[in-house]
Amino acid sequence: MNLAQENDSVLLVGKDGKRSLFVLKSGWRHNTHHGFVEHDDIIGQSFGRSVTTHLGHKVLVLRPSLDDLLMNLKRGSQIIYPKDIGLILLKMDLGAGSRVIEAGTGSGALTTAFAHRVAPTGTIYSYDNREDMINIARKNLELAGYNDRVEFYQRDIIEGFDQTDVDAVFLDVREPWEYLTQVTAALQPSGFFGALVPTTNQVTDLLFGIRGTGLWDVEVLEILVRHYKPVPARLRPVDLMPAHTGYLVFARYVPSDAMDSEGVEELDSSEEGVYENGSQG
Amino acid sequence: MNLAQENDSVLLVGKDGKRSLFVLKSGWRHNTHHGFVEHDDIIGQSFGRSVTTHLGHKVLVLRPSLDDLLMNLKRGSQIIYPKDIGLILLKMDLGAGSRVIEAGTGSGALTTAFAHRVAPTGTIYSYDNREDMINIARKNLELAGYNDRVEFYQRDIIEGFDQTDVDAVFLDVREPWEYLTQVTAALQPSGFFGALVPTTNQVTDLLFGIRGTGLWDVEVLEILVRHYKPVPARLRPVDLMPAHTGYLVFARYVPSDAMDSEGVEELDSSEEGVYENGSQG
Amino acid sequence: MNLAQENDSVLLVGKDGKRSLFVLKSGWRHNTHHGFVEHDDIIGQSFGRSVTTHLGHKVLVLRPSLDDLLMNLKRGSQIIYPKDIGLILLKMDLGAGSRVIEAGTGSGALTTAFAHRVAPTGTIYSYDNREDMINIARKNLELAGYNDRVEFYQRDIIEGFDQTDVDAVFLDVREPWEYLTQVTAALQPSGFFGALVPTTNQVTDLLFGIRGTGLWDVEVLEILVRHYKPVPARLRPVDLMPAHTGYLVFARYVPSDAMDSEGVEELDSSEEGVYENGSQG
Amino acid sequence: MNLAQENDSVLLVGKDGKRSLFVLKSGWRHNTHHGFVEHDDIIGQSFGRSVTTHLGHKVLVLRPSLDDLLMNLKRGSQIIYPKDIGLILLKMDLGAGSRVIEAGTGSGALTTAFAHRVAPTGTIYSYDNREDMINIARKNLELAGYNDRVEFYQRDIIEGFDQTDVDAVFLDVREPWEYLTQVTAALQPSGFFGALVPTTNQVTDLLFGIRGTGLWDVEVLEILVRHYKPVPARLRPVDLMPAHTGYLVFARYVPSDAMDSEGVEELDSSEEGVYENGSQG
Repeated sequence: MNLAQENDSVLLVGKDGKRSLFVLKSGWRHNTHHGFVEHDDIIGQSFGRSVTTHLGHKVLVLRPSLDDLLMNLKRGSQIIYPKDIGLILLKMDLGAGSRVIEAGTGSGALTTAFAHRVAPTGTIYSYDNREDMINIARKNLELAGYNDRVEFYQRDIIEGFDQTDVDAVFLDVREPWEYLTQVTAALQPSGFFGALVPTTNQVTDLLFGIRGTGLWDVEVLEILVRHYKPVPARLRPVDLMPAHTGYLVFARYVPSDAMDSEGVEELDSSEEGVYENGSQG
Repeated sequence: MNLAQENDSVLLVGKDGKRSLFVLKSGWRHNTHHGFVEHDDIIGQSFGRSVTTHLGHKVLVLRPSLDDLLMNLKRGSQIIYPKDIGLILLKMDLGAGSRVIEAGTGSGALTTAFAHRVAPTGTIYSYDNREDMINIARKNLELAGYNDRVEFYQRDIIEGFDQTDVDAVFLDVREPWEYLTQVTAALQPSGFFGALVPTTNQVTDLLFGIRGTGLWDVEVLEILVRHYKPVPARLRPVDLMPAHTGYLVFARYVPSDAMDSEGVEELDSSEEGVYENGSQG
Repeated sequence: MNLAQENDSVLLVGKDGKRSLFVLKSGWRHNTHHGFVEHDDIIGQSFGRSVTTHLGHKVLVLRPSLDDLLMNLKRGSQIIYPKDIGLILLKMDLGAGSRVIEAGTGSGALTTAFAHRVAPTGTIYSYDNREDMINIARKNLELAGYNDRVEFYQRDIIEGFDQTDVDAVFLDVREPWEYLTQVTAALQPSGFFGALVPTTNQVTDLLFGIRGTGLWDVEVLEILVRHYKPVPARLRPVDLMPAHTGYLVFARYVPSDAMDSEGVEELDSSEEGVYENGSQG
Repeated sequence: MNLAQENDSVLLVGKDGKRSLFVLKSGWRHNTHHGFVEHDDIIGQSFGRSVTTHLGHKVLVLRPSLDDLLMNLKRGSQIIYPKDIGLILLKMDLGAGSRVIEAGTGSGALTTAFAHRVAPTGTIYSYDNREDMINIARKNLELAGYNDRVEFYQRDIIEGFDQTDVDAVFLDVREPWEYLTQVTAALQPSGFFGALVPTTNQVTDLLFGIRGTGLWDVEVLEILVRHYKPVPARLRPVDLMPAHTGYLVFARYVPSDAMDSEGVEELDSSEEGVYENGSQG
């Protein structure tokens, strides 16, 4: 069964649609717009049911999903969208036990998603040169209950990473092309590289930088998500959608001695055709 | 380290970009366009390097990613795209240890992704009424090495599912609205529902069907992915893209006694506004 | 040359980017945030230059484009976007001298675009059952200087149109499928039909309604426009875009005696293939 | 009425969906897959009806629309899509009587659309340095019946244009930023500039080039069109769509003495906000 335990994160939803996310602590109270609830009224009960506030209003008690966690992050910087995170997790091939380097940490949205993904045995090594961002991220990870799977490093990554042989490296920094030597020094052969950049100029710079590094099978893409109003008799998209979050760049590390450079070049172009035909699978 | 073992899946990439995916068996040979390679030349060696065929050509040896596995599925039916799978995994909140019901199985693309996601301890219960599809899926899962995490059921799901209290149910069937009672009987409170349907008429029917079932916080969306040619000096999107794969519908199960129906109604609409503002995070 | 005349529409742009559109009248004054300008300082001068307000500020004087006119309409109802108008004008094949029926009038955005397009000798017959909308539209058309090319009719179009043998009929009404007999009675053979509807349910109803009416070569489409921030060193799309304005449906009138019904059926499907291949040209 | 005359263009549609476009000449015959038709059986008859081939099959006779003309162009180079043409015509503010410069001519698709748009009294000045392209374009314009509205110039436009005070200049050339002095020398104040370029690098170069030229109110955008299968009970988008044709750049010419440069700068950014809010109208 699915019972709420002390130290679990919990999501409360009020009648007004107001959501709040917090960690259960025996003896504590949580205030809502419709009165407070006792944590002890939640601990030991199943999720997906309701509790009653001291003013007699029902409030819904849910186990927060990764999506809920991401929506409730304290933000200190730009956010990454679920549409992008879903594909990043897939393309970086993260799974239970993966060891992943990420820079920069930002408010820890991607860190949270990575930590969720590599449970129960993997580790995230998260680098940022700003102490304030690491502090925000640390709090967000704590709320998610994932703190023990993440190691934070406050550092300029031009100095390199402490890990080697990791499964994947993801860069969410302004000039990712400046750190590709550091990236390939940390990656295991066959490992995955990813980056998110907002402008086309950065994509161009990154693609130029990737040449000759052993990063291979390069993909550049963007994702658009369109929500519909869930009204069955008048089905139509919502009025506005995000026009842009960023360009995603993915590649795979193949040390240069693994193949002749001509061979690698050839692969790139043939692979590209697959995606152009829309038959990627 | 990252050494290939007997019974591991392996991805070979030739100079011509040709990829092949197979399981390593000591004593076996694998034919490529440029000669054969001995499995024993791969077993015990690290991934991300090359082997030489009997004709002297280098071939790249990679550990197949989930993306590689999905691209190499034997297909007996419509395929689900990585862009959709990434978000489905996120929205269904799957993680290590999750128990998930899926119907129909199809060629097992989503089954493969689910199995990858719930490792090492979760289980996928996959239902299809066609024996031929289950056989194709079983072979695909075997190639991926995920067979022991999947239980197949050949059945018309109108008869219901054998499991209860599962974390998530995903329907990839023609008339998902016909099985919502079966879905909520199997789901634990707070659990996740998802469906993929190709036409707007089906979205309408599903949204009508969802009313009053306890499926709540309904989201309808579609994802568009656009690849770019990875040519830095002439950066531009590819010429063609998929215009449509399907509409994704997600909801969460909240038993009707958990909240007053008016409350739930209210939540739906307020939540919808969040996505319209593009501030979903 | 390009000199402003009395009764011309003029667009003023201030230093603060504030735009105002009005008709030139000798002896009048126009107030801006930076002082007033005398109409007589504009009349007889060329467009694309500036005038000085009585407070000494330069204000830009432009001949309003159709796009400017559409952006400055007084709105009493939903607006139609330039992205849609551009394709509507093309698909309805409007040109100098065309005779076009439109219903409903709304605030006259499409009426304005049609009137601009059929100049100097064409006529727009614009029907709406709401007097207030016709009054708003009439004022907008006056500002554009197109009033003499438009005839307004306040009527429920279930009673039919007064014209026959027109080049095109466009319906921007809630239930366009209710008026198809009236449409084909007004259209000349080979003439063009168009409609804009916001929901998928309406598209379905319209497609069902079109069957057997002689409306042929049916196209259903939607247009997405994405603006970029015009910053050369940091080129990227803007943050938000319209996710939806409406679905456009186009068809051509071929009286049923012109071809065997099987023939027409065949055409439809083959034609559809052209668009699927993206090779429409 | 709407009768076919000698020298009119006509579109024939056979039962197999095969379309052919030609000019009516008394005494001539036209071959179809189902037998030939006599031009004289079409001349003097109304459009939107059928004629019978010598083998007894009905063939539909339509007056070709601009869209039909564009779809039937003989192609010697890249094509421009209707989705782009519709917005180009709108944004360049072309109307009856406009005088427009275009470079390069290409196969004359845009030339055809411009010529259609400026009828009956306008002129298109079309420049290309390749004689073969001009010859193809000339034939396409002839078929459309628009030849007398177009003047062709075989020239490298670095030498400038022969016209001044034109209403609009559109560049469909590889390096449009090289010719902006020539563009503004030809444009009247308040006139319109447009360009189509396929890569983001070209957009960047063009935006840098535009600075200080008097081209103002710069817009950069792209248009995506998505067709739906017109099947009412199974409404869904087609499988593939064009992912990209090109980026459109529009601007308006305001000689630098018309406003203080700071003023112009200010306008740019404020205007940009309008489009970001999706409220362009």
